[in-house]
Amino acid sequence: MPVNLPLPRREELFPVAGVELGWAEAGIRKANRKDVLVVRIADGASVGGVFTRNRFCAAPVTVSREHLAAGAGIRALVVNTGNANAGTGEAGLRVARTTCEALAKLLGCEAAQVLPFSTGVIMEPLPVDRLVAGLPAAIDRLGPGHWFEAAEAIMTTDTQPKAVSRRVDLGGKTITVTGIAKGAGMIRPNMATMLGFVATDAAIAPALMPQLTRIAADRSFNRITIDGDTSTNDSFVVIASGQGGAPRIDSANSPAYAAVAGAIEAVALQLAQAIVRDGEGATKFIEVRVEQARTEEEAARIAYAVAHSPLVKTAFFASDPNLGRILAAVGYAGVDDLDTRLVQMHLDDVWVVSNGGRRSEYREEDGQRVMKQSEITIRLQLGRGAASTSVWTSDLSHDYVSINADYRS
Amino acid sequence: MPVNLPLPRREELFPVAGVELGWAEAGIRKANRKDVLVVRIADGASVGGVFTRNRFCAAPVTVSREHLAAGAGIRALVVNTGNANAGTGEAGLRVARTTCEALAKLLGCEAAQVLPFSTGVIMEPLPVDRLVAGLPAAIDRLGPGHWFEAAEAIMTTDTQPKAVSRRVDLGGKTITVTGIAKGAGMIRPNMATMLGFVATDAAIAPALMPQLTRIAADRSFNRITIDGDTSTNDSFVVIASGQGGAPRIDSANSPAYAAVAGAIEAVALQLAQAIVRDGEGATKFIEVRVEQARTEEEAARIAYAVAHSPLVKTAFFASDPNLGRILAAVGYAGVDDLDTRLVQMHLDDVWVVSNGGRRSEYREEDGQRVMKQSEITIRLQLGRGAASTSVWTSDLSHDYVSINADYRS
Repeated sequence: MPVNLPLPRREELFPVAGVELGWAEAGIRKANRKDVLVVRIADGASVGGVFTRNRFCAAPVTVSREHLAAGAGIRALVVNTGNANAGTGEAGLRVARTTCEALAKLLGCEAAQVLPFSTGVIMEPLPVDRLVAGLPAAIDRLGPGHWFEAAEAIMTTDTQPKAVSRRVDLGGKTITVTGIAKGAGMIRPNMATMLGFVATDAAIAPALMPQLTRIAADRSFNRITIDGDTSTNDSFVVIASGQGGAPRIDSANSPAYAAVAGAIEAVALQLAQAIVRDGEGATKFIEVRVEQARTEEEAARIAYAVAHSPLVKTAFFASDPNLGRILAAVGYAGVDDLDTRLVQMHLDDVWVVSNGGRRSEYREEDGQRVMKQSEITIRLQLGRGAASTSVWTSDLSHDYVSINADYRS
Repeated sequence: MPVNLPLPRREELFPVAGVELGWAEAGIRKANRKDVLVVRIADGASVGGVFTRNRFCAAPVTVSREHLAAGAGIRALVVNTGNANAGTGEAGLRVARTTCEALAKLLGCEAAQVLPFSTGVIMEPLPVDRLVAGLPAAIDRLGPGHWFEAAEAIMTTDTQPKAVSRRVDLGGKTITVTGIAKGAGMIRPNMATMLGFVATDAAIAPALMPQLTRIAADRSFNRITIDGDTSTNDSFVVIASGQGGAPRIDSANSPAYAAVAGAIEAVALQLAQAIVRDGEGATKFIEVRVEQARTEEEAARIAYAVAHSPLVKTAFFASDPNLGRILAAVGYAGVDDLDTRLVQMHLDDVWVVSNGGRRSEYREEDGQRVMKQSEITIRLQLGRGAASTSVWTSDLSHDYVSINADYRS
């Protein structure tokens, strides 16, 4: 059961002009489930992508990076679940290239205009014949209104599809931003989540896309963690189709850029938080906010230490205000000159720690009350500076162990 | 149930001349359990200690550091379980000092000659009155043959006491090394384990103790991890009583130093591995060995990334050879110029990965066979250099979650 994550409503997922989606049941790993997604993009779109920093990046990540760098204009995405095509060496690269060639042939474009993505089990050969055989069915289903089904088609251990849409007014023209994401385990993105795709019908100069995509990822998918494992396949792609009728955005300093980039960031953050809410075995949605740090990097380091601590996460699962575990994680985060006597901690509205120690006014029943909630904010103030950041995470439950002990069975 | 960890045999725990141990049931947290240990050390002993790097170090760690630095000669240790006296601010420091003063008065020495240690719940006030009231009973029981009971007296979530003893011949004189340790969770020592005490009757010059203690810790307690949480209270102390009758060791280059330091390291490593074998919820004992690294630090970084990955640890719990998760952890360990095409992996005698990808000769049933064992070695070869190291860890089971979700109840 995800934490406060309603199913997306189909009627609130607005189509994006110039972007069509179709799926297939190709039987990559299991029969009778959507496991292939094809996204067709109109000619002339601008596309940006950021990818995992994992050195064992998957073959499709390598090929997507190459194709984006080639600059031929991206015309399609192809996604499969059930197999990550990672840790598969040269054979895996051939499989990813073969997939792009097959889809390009069917769509009448170049292989370098296709970006491939895979998610699923690592280090097993991807059955490329089945994937390629599924492409015609996916192409038959291409349509602009299929965002819900597209979100379903990229699920693995997700318990429900994740899709978000919003509209912004751009000088009288309504611009749409719609996105989907998947991911529930092996989540500590270091660039982007496992898979996130956001499209807008705004027109954005290609030169602006790398920065726009990078910043949107840094403020969303790069601020969540479930288990601290950075995947081999993390990919985040932003598509600007330019089919919405609004003037093209050529400067990152324009109000129009701010409006569209803000909407893209908001969609990305909502998708990223949806991944945490649907985190493997999650029963709680936790924000770790660190304030008064010297730098944002330092704030993030401390927030991640707290968010990764199995002892903190099991205490939240148990609704046990065993809050000293949070201080312990702050202490080993690697900020060597931290003066613990300046540290303060709040749990939502309850002030727990001042001057580095438990406040005499703090009463355990107040901590207990907050710990029982399904959404909790830990606020840590370091007394060192003015930088701050938040990281979102889930708790560590029996179900996390069950899901990951049984994943392949 | 610890993994292949027989109960220590009393008759194999050799007394160390000049070291006496006594315990009490002081009711620090719960009644009717040994929760206080006093160790009396003969005048003239050399003592070394290493402590946690956690910035939120506990009050007793601060006081032990001060007392060791004062150089007045250490005459006693006092240990309590049930409360870590960490995250307790100035009040906690007063409690630690009061404890030392009380024991010093009873033993007829200076407070600065006493080292205090605490382990248990963090951020709760330590009931110092109960601790002090328990000291006379512990002193009444002081005796050289109480290593087993001493190991029992420092247990928290440990399922059994951990004690190791060995003897070495030093030019015709038999020298004894006996040690105890505790710890089962919040284990990713960064200096030492939660608590480890090793004593020898060898005579060692005080100037040699810091390096001897540091190296012994680095090769034992600093190479284990259960949950990646570095405790606020980690402490490791080596006592050389000099009462064994062998000549005093004044040089780190002497054969006698090598023999005694080697025996101390061997006892420390066996105690450290006992902590992993008794790790919270452990069902497997896993060695992660990294070879062909550029530096030992790099090897340790990769070994720890694998040993900390919840996905790797749950796969071991499930006996599921989902070995791609190991490659993913290698990839995100932070060795940015790692050439994954050179990486090889063995699981015990089974060669799984060559050239960064799954070997075509690898058969899943071979991986499955090894995964079912209770002791497993993951061997990773990086193809970058000649450095190597090992880290020992346990798996992540349902019981880990249960133990830590229920710890305070």
